[in-house]
Amino acid sequence: MMTPSLSILSDLLSIPSVSTDPEFASGMEDARSYLLTLFTSLGFTAHLLPGRLHPAVFASYIVNPSHPTVLIYGHYDVQPAGAPSQWTTPAFEPSIRKNRIYARGATDNKGQFMIHVMAVRKMLESDALPINVKFLIEGEEEIGSPGIELLTENYKTLLSADYLFLSDTEMPALGQPAIDITLRGCLDVEIHIQTSAQDLHSGQFGGVAPNPAQILAKFLSRLKNGSNKITLPGFYTDVISPNDEEIRDFRKTEPSDTQLLKEGHYFFVGGGENRYSLNRRRWFEPTLDITGLDSGYTGIGTKSIIPDTASAKISIRFVPDQDPEQIYSSLASSLHHSLPKATVWRLIRYPVASAFKAPTDHPVFELVKSSLKSVFGRPAVFQGQGGSIGSVPVLVRALGLPAVMIGFGLPDENLHSPNEHFSLENYFKGIETMSRIYSALPVLHLPNRPESIPIILETSSPGLL
Amino acid sequence: MMTPSLSILSDLLSIPSVSTDPEFASGMEDARSYLLTLFTSLGFTAHLLPGRLHPAVFASYIVNPSHPTVLIYGHYDVQPAGAPSQWTTPAFEPSIRKNRIYARGATDNKGQFMIHVMAVRKMLESDALPINVKFLIEGEEEIGSPGIELLTENYKTLLSADYLFLSDTEMPALGQPAIDITLRGCLDVEIHIQTSAQDLHSGQFGGVAPNPAQILAKFLSRLKNGSNKITLPGFYTDVISPNDEEIRDFRKTEPSDTQLLKEGHYFFVGGGENRYSLNRRRWFEPTLDITGLDSGYTGIGTKSIIPDTASAKISIRFVPDQDPEQIYSSLASSLHHSLPKATVWRLIRYPVASAFKAPTDHPVFELVKSSLKSVFGRPAVFQGQGGSIGSVPVLVRALGLPAVMIGFGLPDENLHSPNEHFSLENYFKGIETMSRIYSALPVLHLPNRPESIPIILETSSPGLL
Repeated sequence: MMTPSLSILSDLLSIPSVSTDPEFASGMEDARSYLLTLFTSLGFTAHLLPGRLHPAVFASYIVNPSHPTVLIYGHYDVQPAGAPSQWTTPAFEPSIRKNRIYARGATDNKGQFMIHVMAVRKMLESDALPINVKFLIEGEEEIGSPGIELLTENYKTLLSADYLFLSDTEMPALGQPAIDITLRGCLDVEIHIQTSAQDLHSGQFGGVAPNPAQILAKFLSRLKNGSNKITLPGFYTDVISPNDEEIRDFRKTEPSDTQLLKEGHYFFVGGGENRYSLNRRRWFEPTLDITGLDSGYTGIGTKSIIPDTASAKISIRFVPDQDPEQIYSSLASSLHHSLPKATVWRLIRYPVASAFKAPTDHPVFELVKSSLKSVFGRPAVFQGQGGSIGSVPVLVRALGLPAVMIGFGLPDENLHSPNEHFSLENYFKGIETMSRIYSALPVLHLPNRPESIPIILETSSPGLL
Repeated sequence: MMTPSLSILSDLLSIPSVSTDPEFASGMEDARSYLLTLFTSLGFTAHLLPGRLHPAVFASYIVNPSHPTVLIYGHYDVQPAGAPSQWTTPAFEPSIRKNRIYARGATDNKGQFMIHVMAVRKMLESDALPINVKFLIEGEEEIGSPGIELLTENYKTLLSADYLFLSDTEMPALGQPAIDITLRGCLDVEIHIQTSAQDLHSGQFGGVAPNPAQILAKFLSRLKNGSNKITLPGFYTDVISPNDEEIRDFRKTEPSDTQLLKEGHYFFVGGGENRYSLNRRRWFEPTLDITGLDSGYTGIGTKSIIPDTASAKISIRFVPDQDPEQIYSSLASSLHHSLPKATVWRLIRYPVASAFKAPTDHPVFELVKSSLKSVFGRPAVFQGQGGSIGSVPVLVRALGLPAVMIGFGLPDENLHSPNEHFSLENYFKGIETMSRIYSALPVLHLPNRPESIPIILETSSPGLL
């Protein structure tokens, strides 16, 4: 028989809330209804906040305005399930095997945010919730969180809190708890180069007409030097280096080449600066990758042309405190100066996801580390995230609070792939950990918290102070 | 009323002989029948020779085995007509306007080879054909002459001749006759680079996984140096330079930058070595062009991947006496040595078209020049061809004869485009020129012809020497 915390998760997992596909609009609505009902049944005030395509669920439980307040972020939308034939059991029929629950969204992100809901539920049941709790469960994470910035701006007061907690990342291995302290930002640009009004005959014009693909290749090849250092002027100026504790922690989870090659199914390590450890290269160093190349004829066989245009898509993962504006300007200026005069070019820029670095000297991180250790029996490590979670820097910047990212997912849980699953061991240990953390938050010694400032009350009755 | 030579051309132009499209199989057959009947009616022996997809028409008229023999090459197949809406009059309903005949194939190549047929017809009518004539009119030129090599091998004796004549090129301008003395060869290759078994998440793996598009861009960018010289080892070793007369002639038709830019609708001159004249660059110098680039995601928007593969198509136009085998080896070896170990790569090589250089010191070129001058009133110039005509080097090599390429087309006649046409002034002047040339061939002074070698006859009667 399922415990309530498991059957609630299972019910949520059976709802096909795919945000990217309009056919699943009712699944998205069902997931929102389910969450609104769930929060209300727990005593929360719950309602929707507008997104760009799909509203977010907002729920708050205010115990006492003077208590610390946590904002917990999660997302109820999931990736499309993909081919049913690739799933052992259907994507939206949760199934438990070997202490794991299988379903689309199990680890990304329903199982993970439900840990926080269940921790709060447990504390409420034993009448021991010493903090105020706000949940923001959005429905647009899998489509890039396009609405989060405006939503945060418009509901700043409603969302205000002392801490942001979220679980949308991974532990390096079962039994090894971890706290994610960085996110790389992401700047995508597209370069278009044109050298003629139409494709040209490569025999007639070869030798006198410029070739945009050759010009593009030359530009791209110069963006990195022989040591894979990015050559854009000023690119590294503001890069924050990890501190000693962080470097020490990164070493604890430093993978071998072989291990990384196996995880990614790639053939050799490359693409970053050799002088840094692998963890530093993927978490703390910026990268520049060509994500697409297109020019001329790409079908079967040959076509005797000099193409009229060539284009490349480039993705730059930048780190704190690099400025994406400055990076973009540097790229545009390099392009402008490297192209032959009379080349027609265009640079398209996509919305930026900011980089993020957790304030690891904040006392909450000590509390989180010790709580994780007491439940998992092993000290938690700091680790980084090479990817981006667009909502985190937005919330942090707008609300001015520390973000604590505790991953309970595991690297092999097939997020975005068939047979996605979530470890029930981590689910229950996560609930235990989070209720310990939330219980201990009020006693956290915060040197700058308003509570530590002496409050002078004006009174006419000295006996009443 | 049309003259016979014009109405015969018009009839041939009304037959839709598109070689690339199976729907036009009957048009191809009609064109062959038309030609077989035409040649037979002129007194030729005519029959078909096998091609790869479409047979060639072969016709011969042997006046006297001891007379000089010319082999005339042409092709009866044409490019697809394209959108009917772009044609002023239908592509296969020949129409005469302002002394030009409009139809698909008018200049490429029906009008041009018909000049030779009509010249011979004219000579036969006045009973003045002092040479043997063989026509090889193939049906696969527009699909790259895939059958010409085998056909030539198998029918070497049948095709044997003293001269090869063809008109499948252009004059630089109306009134300026020209002889094409070079063809560049063409070697197409495709490079595939793979660095992982699947696309990777650019956040998770950016900085530790190699990027095949970046590796490819680097390789491609190094194929040419800052002066556009191709850097493949040994590439230029066997390149034949033009001689003084050729360079002088090239200067006569040297275009301005502006003129070339206008012809090709491109934005600036580039892609060849600056130290050479434009004509030399497009006719006598080898080139290397990227004709296609493909990697990763090329649709709308972004995709956060490190692609698993990247590929490029490259077309090398080489010149006499460069060896395509050697070029290919040099490219393969450069690729092999420049790629990081463990990169998986593949090089695909397409069939080669050989380069060609006419033996301009052969006396026939003087005869052709003077004949062109007498008809056009202006000295003919030697010029080159940046493109390739696959059949010419094949026939020349197999049959050991000089090739004379006289272009009667004009640069603005829209070959391969809508509203293709052919100048009737050139058609009639071409017939006049070719009949003069063919008439004069027997009196040509050929130092090395067997006839000029003293023949010692063994005889018993001294008075008969």
